[in-house]
Amino acid sequence: MWVGVVTDTDSDAVRRLDPVPLPDVTVDDDFWGGRRETLRGTTLTYVHEKLEGTGRVDNFRIAAGEAEGEFSGKFYNDSDVYKWVEAASDALASGLAGADGDLRERVDDVVAAIAAAQAPDGYLNTYFQLVEPDGRWTNLHRMHELYCAGHLIEAAVAHRDATGESTLLDVARAFADHVDERFGPDGVQGYPGHEELELALVRLYRATDEERYLDLASYFVEERGAEDSPFERELRNPEGVAGEVMADYLFDDEGSYDGSYMQDQAPVRETESIEGHSVRATYLYAGATDVAVETDDRDLLAAVERVWRNMTERRSYVTGGIGSAYSGERFTEDYHLPNRTAYAETCAALGSVRWNHRLLQATGEARFADVLERTLYNGFLVGVSLSGDRFFYVNPLRVDPEDGPEGDYEEHFATERREWFGTACCPTNVPRLLAGLERYLFLVDREADAVTLPLHVGSEADVTVGGESVHLDVATDYPWDGETTVTVEVDEPASFGLRLRVPPWAAEATLSVDGDVVGTDLDAGFVGVDRTWTGGETVALSFGMPVRTLAAHPAVDADEGRVAVERGPIVYCLEDVDAPASLARVQLPADAAADATVAHEPDLLDGVTTVELPARVLPEGDALYRATSDRDAAEGSVTAVPYYAWGHRDGAAMRVWVPTTVDPAG
Amino acid sequence: MWVGVVTDTDSDAVRRLDPVPLPDVTVDDDFWGGRRETLRGTTLTYVHEKLEGTGRVDNFRIAAGEAEGEFSGKFYNDSDVYKWVEAASDALASGLAGADGDLRERVDDVVAAIAAAQAPDGYLNTYFQLVEPDGRWTNLHRMHELYCAGHLIEAAVAHRDATGESTLLDVARAFADHVDERFGPDGVQGYPGHEELELALVRLYRATDEERYLDLASYFVEERGAEDSPFERELRNPEGVAGEVMADYLFDDEGSYDGSYMQDQAPVRETESIEGHSVRATYLYAGATDVAVETDDRDLLAAVERVWRNMTERRSYVTGGIGSAYSGERFTEDYHLPNRTAYAETCAALGSVRWNHRLLQATGEARFADVLERTLYNGFLVGVSLSGDRFFYVNPLRVDPEDGPEGDYEEHFATERREWFGTACCPTNVPRLLAGLERYLFLVDREADAVTLPLHVGSEADVTVGGESVHLDVATDYPWDGETTVTVEVDEPASFGLRLRVPPWAAEATLSVDGDVVGTDLDAGFVGVDRTWTGGETVALSFGMPVRTLAAHPAVDADEGRVAVERGPIVYCLEDVDAPASLARVQLPADAAADATVAHEPDLLDGVTTVELPARVLPEGDALYRATSDRDAAEGSVTAVPYYAWGHRDGAAMRVWVPTTVDPAG
Repeated sequence: MWVGVVTDTDSDAVRRLDPVPLPDVTVDDDFWGGRRETLRGTTLTYVHEKLEGTGRVDNFRIAAGEAEGEFSGKFYNDSDVYKWVEAASDALASGLAGADGDLRERVDDVVAAIAAAQAPDGYLNTYFQLVEPDGRWTNLHRMHELYCAGHLIEAAVAHRDATGESTLLDVARAFADHVDERFGPDGVQGYPGHEELELALVRLYRATDEERYLDLASYFVEERGAEDSPFERELRNPEGVAGEVMADYLFDDEGSYDGSYMQDQAPVRETESIEGHSVRATYLYAGATDVAVETDDRDLLAAVERVWRNMTERRSYVTGGIGSAYSGERFTEDYHLPNRTAYAETCAALGSVRWNHRLLQATGEARFADVLERTLYNGFLVGVSLSGDRFFYVNPLRVDPEDGPEGDYEEHFATERREWFGTACCPTNVPRLLAGLERYLFLVDREADAVTLPLHVGSEADVTVGGESVHLDVATDYPWDGETTVTVEVDEPASFGLRLRVPPWAAEATLSVDGDVVGTDLDAGFVGVDRTWTGGETVALSFGMPVRTLAAHPAVDADEGRVAVERGPIVYCLEDVDAPASLARVQLPADAAADATVAHEPDLLDGVTTVELPARVLPEGDALYRATSDRDAAEGSVTAVPYYAWGHRDGAAMRVWVPTTVDPAG
Repeated sequence: MWVGVVTDTDSDAVRRLDPVPLPDVTVDDDFWGGRRETLRGTTLTYVHEKLEGTGRVDNFRIAAGEAEGEFSGKFYNDSDVYKWVEAASDALASGLAGADGDLRERVDDVVAAIAAAQAPDGYLNTYFQLVEPDGRWTNLHRMHELYCAGHLIEAAVAHRDATGESTLLDVARAFADHVDERFGPDGVQGYPGHEELELALVRLYRATDEERYLDLASYFVEERGAEDSPFERELRNPEGVAGEVMADYLFDDEGSYDGSYMQDQAPVRETESIEGHSVRATYLYAGATDVAVETDDRDLLAAVERVWRNMTERRSYVTGGIGSAYSGERFTEDYHLPNRTAYAETCAALGSVRWNHRLLQATGEARFADVLERTLYNGFLVGVSLSGDRFFYVNPLRVDPEDGPEGDYEEHFATERREWFGTACCPTNVPRLLAGLERYLFLVDREADAVTLPLHVGSEADVTVGGESVHLDVATDYPWDGETTVTVEVDEPASFGLRLRVPPWAAEATLSVDGDVVGTDLDAGFVGVDRTWTGGETVALSFGMPVRTLAAHPAVDADEGRVAVERGPIVYCLEDVDAPASLARVQLPADAAADATVAHEPDLLDGVTTVELPARVLPEGDALYRATSDRDAAEGSVTAVPYYAWGHRDGAAMRVWVPTTVDPAG
């Protein structure tokens, strides 16, 4: 099955699969096409207006002296602006020009504000420039200067790639140079409190060929977890400005420094388990994977994979969501995966998608695409409404809105996505991922002269492989159907391989070319064909997509005696609105999948395939405890809907894990 | 079934069943006989030596000026001494003279110390006398003076009843008079922060016929929940000594007074649900029941029954344990009954036994005896080791000793009973209940001329009923077997009724006299026979005792997809030591009881009947999520042991609620 029993990578060297550039890929997909249209028509404009309306862009204008006022909002709000610029730039590169076709104009306006705010020495952070001008770099563990720098860099590279203009890239390089001058083996010891800059610096290195940026990324990755932690020094400095804010997270009960909240408990190479703040963790290991790839460092990659195994085998929700605890937005213990109090932040899902994408590129192994896909279609996608302008920050797998002792975190009882958050990381990450979806669709293995399709998304791509220009046209009804075809067009006959991923739950996968079966053997999760293509061939991958009832590892207390339902890459859930009785009274047989029926409902929730399952419905009654032999539960049925789409109808209870039948039928 | 669906009392008046005096009853029972021998030979001496060793008795000697030193320990430690005197007095009355036959001597010594410490004005509390002489009565909500007074009274009545001497009763009366002079409608407004004095004053009234004590008890019961709470006044008095200790419990998030922690949220008559500290709550409602009985107040009794229904139908563990939260040792919400973090304090179980006993006496309805029995054999009895000198304070229904995020309460992971506690309420309550077990065995209904046997315990009693002296000899192998015989001996032919309780789970109950079936109809849970007895008759009650698998109300999240196992009055549990694999890998079929086999094992855990159940054993494996159709669980079996006896072998995991089979067999 998808998670848990995985084999270690057996290759010796770090392998490198490259994504096809954004402008060379077009998404043309029933499922994602609607999402992208919503992104274009709603989300990008909506988020921009929120950024303007909440003063986030004005902070730059004020820092530049171009507007009156004071800094407003959280000290990390610059990052939201950068993230929007990155998303909008990717959208421009993908041909999504905004609701009124004015996206480029909006981007230019924001980029100009950013550029104007930069200090003469390259420094750029509107909070410190406006509020604590003397506080720069004194508070790395908390104040997100380096994190914001990372998002600036990512935005700048995306902006340059989309527009061909270097306005923002120049700003980013100047800030990166400023950071490089200060930190490193020959400078001040330090690294980001919230990771992001590591992977951004590798991206900047790739965009500029400037090795200093790779070296600095490598330093940040390797220095983290140092015995003499700069974070501990800051915290213990009586004249420092750290204050007590982070003490709860960074000192244990005995007052000893414990940096695991920010992955500072040990060097990456010595880390065994995934710890701490889940967004930070995924960003760090994504950056470390980038460094390993660029330095061909198999040992570093092995360390990162070890951490990945811990996350995937013991600390992930079935939705791909990660982070079990509200307090610290963090990983907790192996197998501690509470459903109602799951945190499973939308941003952490994005972090996992990005990290897994890097591991896939580094190894060519489908197991990383499996987790990526699971997270993308479930734990990530649930974070945004079908309308594109409402968001979940926290994504529990069970919601009982009328329940809950006081003191629990209110988001665990929310049945509707929200307009915005004071900390708006999730609403700005959603468009970031969706706008660059093309990146995940086609990977080219230059060494093996092969094109890998890790996902099943209707799309077209112009790819250069084996020295030839190739056009690939992918058609599919995924995630509702397990049939994907790829039409190959070439100008000249071309020899290259084509690899399609067979999901681990797929039944009877068959690959054919023009109707001839060419293979069913899997290699690292892919089925492939290597041949000389003359053009016009149609490659078809077909696999069964049975409904599955899942059980969790017995050590997962929260899922004991419960099952979850999946079909294809989609995790399903029950909502009160679809249940024949209060959800608390609905039980599923452990083999419910065997008698499930599926139906595609184009008018429900923007078009979903529902799963109807046999169910046992408990009668109303007040007895606190009863002999199971006395129960007279009724045989019935219940309709499950995709988890990503829950919370769009009359708000009520929801659950992914459903108790199995305890009571015999009456 | 036992709990939940209950009918309201249909009698109009408060009925009164009287227990047969302690010296007139003899316990002669396989099950309880061993417990009582341990009480005599170990517990009473052990606890006395702990009280001496920890300075609890010395506090009295110091207050009396008979010893040097300072007050030591908690401010409520006097109560532990009183409770031991009460237990030891009951033991003396029951013919249990201690390990060396020196119990009377030990009691006299402690009673002398208590008496010597009393202040000339009748006041008696060694903490205030020695530490805060000016602080008397300033801090009712927290400082337990009235609570300790209650325990003094209970000890004094028991001591007088056992010895015929009034030494301690005089002390108690003087203190009661002192309290009565201060508090009440004509005095200072106030009532106990921790209830106990209410029921004690009714006991004192019954022992002395002094109506002032009943009036004061009634005042305390009725005044509680007053709009102008004396507790709130204390807390808000800037010159008071209350401090911040109780603020967490008594102010809500907005800073408003919320007295529910100590049942001060509303008058008893207006209370709908059981709230707050579970020991306090049961003691209050036991006292209110006493007041209702003595004042023939049907309305007050109805109010108390309403609260009882809430407790029994929505806030009780299957063991009879109560109190779901460590914080505040309290009731929480309806159906919030977590197993691993259950508090279910041993003292609260005692409180429930005592309250249910009073409701049984007030109504003659077996439903109260059902809860009493369930609590006695399970939630209470688990609190003491078979050796009689180790105790659980907290009684979770699931223990995973190697589990648990940091910050959880350590007692939730304890697998062994402890020697003692800084707050030693539980070790002193255990002997209190066991020494007076006789009280629960025979109740006389003087109006109906009938004797009621609410429990099934081997015993003999000399009873006066219908004006005649009757000797009853009860024989049974309960709780392992459902056969109870009562041999009736009379000097003269006597007409009276005999009522035996048929437990609600019993199958096919039959009552016969000398082999002739006389009836199977139940009246309020009892089966009875009214006749003229000539002596030598044997009454036999016989019922089946099938193994049962229980399910909880669907609103109990913690028990979803899980079953518990019972046989007779005994709740069973699984312990790792008996399981074919790590307990986490063991699942039970929902109808496990149907294929259970039972065996009495005289050498196991002082003699228990074990239940062997079919089980599904999951294989070892690392997968976090798997399709249920892929699992290859093995058919196996597991032995369940009585919950009350868990934790006596190699300490490991335990659970009462076991997941049902999710996976098909391989």
